[in-house]
Order: sequence, then structure tokens, then C-alpha cells
Amino acid sequence: MDLYFSPLACSMATRIAFYEAGAEANYLEVDPQTKRVQADGSDFFAINPLGLVPTLRTDDGTILTENAAILQYVAGQFPDSGIGASGVMERARLQQWLCFIGTELHKGLFVPLLSKTAPAEAKAYTLEKGLSRLDYLDNTLKDREFLLDRFSVADAYLVTVINWTMATPPIDLAKWPSIKAYYERTRARPSIARALAEEFSLYKAELARHKAAA
Amino acid sequence: MDLYFSPLACSMATRIAFYEAGAEANYLEVDPQTKRVQADGSDFFAINPLGLVPTLRTDDGTILTENAAILQYVAGQFPDSGIGASGVMERARLQQWLCFIGTELHKGLFVPLLSKTAPAEAKAYTLEKGLSRLDYLDNTLKDREFLLDRFSVADAYLVTVINWTMATPPIDLAKWPSIKAYYERTRARPSIARALAEEFSLYKAELARHKAAA
Repeated sequence: MDLYFSPLACSMATRIAFYEAGAEANYLEVDPQTKRVQADGSDFFAINPLGLVPTLRTDDGTILTENAAILQYVAGQFPDSGIGASGVMERARLQQWLCFIGTELHKGLFVPLLSKTAPAEAKAYTLEKGLSRLDYLDNTLKDREFLLDRFSVADAYLVTVINWTMATPPIDLAKWPSIKAYYERTRARPSIARALAEEFSLYKAELARHKAAA
Repeated sequence: MDLYFSPLACSMATRIAFYEAGAEANYLEVDPQTKRVQADGSDFFAINPLGLVPTLRTDDGTILTENAAILQYVAGQFPDSGIGASGVMERARLQQWLCFIGTELHKGLFVPLLSKTAPAEAKAYTLEKGLSRLDYLDNTLKDREFLLDRFSVADAYLVTVINWTMATPPIDLAKWPSIKAYYERTRARPSIARALAEEFSLYKAELARHKAAA
């Protein structure tokens, strides 16, 4: 499978899923500014008209978009990894968490905060609504190691999103000790430590590239 | 099952799913301002700490939240209705659309636009980013009757969200003729026409209640 990704973007969750499954994949870096595929300079909009990572090309050439769909598809391809859900209610809980992370945290809170173009008023509005979601998450994680009863793709997505707090100064995890503890123990997991180290290195290269082009 | 809903909110998609399946459910109205359950005046935050509809109580008393999870759960409970997905790739496409509608349209575009408290700058930023998503959707719907090859819970969600354009003046569907045609033919579908009529009536009652309390 081919995974189109940008360093430290939400596509990192799918990389973590592949590492957890011990599965091979081709990782194709997309520059988030130019929307060019780094390997050959081709136009990423030709692959995904929205220009969004992650985008997955399955082994039969089908293009799949949207994080929750890709994560569940990858989990389903490697059932022995245990990173997906089994049974009706566990599947519903997995989808509940993927949806919460995608709508309330990723889109509702972090996208406006991380934006270089969003006006200050938009960011203030976002914070006012969004921080209550962190309270809810902190309360959930008080007595849980993972979102489900074991590590799943929902954790791969959550740790990827929480990692963005490094770039969003108004969100100091000290205020949410259970989230902070979850983040610290989860990022020490081998699949995640590896993904973070590799993508952080690519991210620094991306920043250097943008600086050189400016 | 008990469905906590607010009139014309995204919870209407689950009502449509029940109607499509010909299934009985208890509909418990939640006032979006007071977060009280209308039937008994109880506190909805005690059911869902985020105060968000839809919230579903399953037949065994489990509370399930988040639209994408609830819609897929309800579809799975009534497989004969054909509103869910079958097979790996169809399931992935269903999840792709539920995720797109939930993140790009619902949270990314409509929530800030429909907000009574979002500042003008936040709304302008939202429109600038969000309208390209309608271009993408319009292009997709050019040669499709439904998002999948037949009516599914993704259509139930999409028609619910597009219906909000009535309350968001900057989004005039005339600019997206395929979305407009989709909306018009889909809302004529019996399950949707019934849900819209019932919830519009409840919505008017909600507005009158708020006016009387102001």
C-alpha cells in the first residue's frame, strides 16, 4: 500500500498502525505548502482533489481518503495486530473515539489553532469551545491505559493529535494531567517512538526547505 | 433504543435511519440551550458529559455518542434495511463519507457558520477554507444518485447537514447545482420528508419556547 503523508500531520497515525502491524508500506511525502509529492514532484491534487493527507492507495490501486476510514481499513487488513475492533460494541466504541478525535479535537480545536492564517478572533473562539473537550478526555483517561481495553488505531490517532500541543502554546498539558501521562507513556511505545523520531526529522527538513524557498 | 436529539440538529440523521429501517425508537428531545431533556426536565449532561446530540441508549442500556458511530451501529442493527455497508471496500467508503461530512462539512464549515457567538472573523475564515469542500462534493454528486451505490446512512447525514444551508445565508446552493439537485430529490424520500416535517415543527416550538423565556 502507498501512504501519502506529511511529517507530523494526522497521517502519522496510519504510519503507527503499519508499524504496530509489522507491515510494509510505501511512504510518499507530500509538501503541505506546495502539495507536491516529494519523490517525483507530481501534483498531489491529482491523487486527492482535497489535497489532504492521509491518502491511501490500496494494493489493488483504490484511493481511500479520510483518517477514520483509512485507520479502520488498515486495522482490518492486519487482524492479528489487534489494533482494530472486534464485535459490535467494541467497533462502535472505536468509531466513537475516532469520530470524537476527528471532529472535536482535530477539526474543532487544533486545525484553527495550528493555522497560520486564522485570525486571532477565530483562535479565541476555538479555545473557548474546545478546551472543554480536553477536560472530558482527561476525565476519561484517569483510569484507562488506552481508549479501548488495549492499544488500537484510536490511540494512534489520539497521540498524533496530542503531539500537536507542542506547537499550540495556549494548550499546556499540565492542566490535564491524565492526558499528559497518557501522552508520555504512549509516545514511549516502540511503534510511536519510531514514527515520531522519523517524522520529526522529516519535519525539520520540511521547515528548512520552506525557509530556503522563501 | 432511546435517541437523544434536538430538532434539525445532526441527530436527525439517526431518526432518518430508524425510519428507513422501519424500526421503533424513543425520541427524547434535548433543548440545545438549557441542555434539559424536555420530557422530564432532567440534565442531559448526566447522560453525555459533552452535552452533544445524537446520543443513543442501546437496548441493553449502553450509552453511545458521536454521529458516525451511532449511524453505523443503527445500520448494523437492521441489516435488512440496506442502509449500512457490506464488504471491506464498501465499509471503507461509508466511513470515508461519514468522516468527510463530520469533519469537513459539519465541524469545519457549518458549526462556526451556525454559531450565534462566533465572531465575524471566525466565520470569514471558515468560509474561505470551507467552500472548496462544497466544490468537491458537487463534483462527486454530478453523476451519482447517492454517496454509495444505494441510499445509506451517509446520505441520511449529508441531507441533514445540507439542510442547514437554509440558516446559513452565505451558502447559496445555486452555486452547487449537483448538491442542490441531490438535496431536492433526497428530501422528497419518504423517511426524510417525514423526519424533516416532524423536526421542523419541533424546531418552531423550540424557537417559541426560547422567545417566551427570553
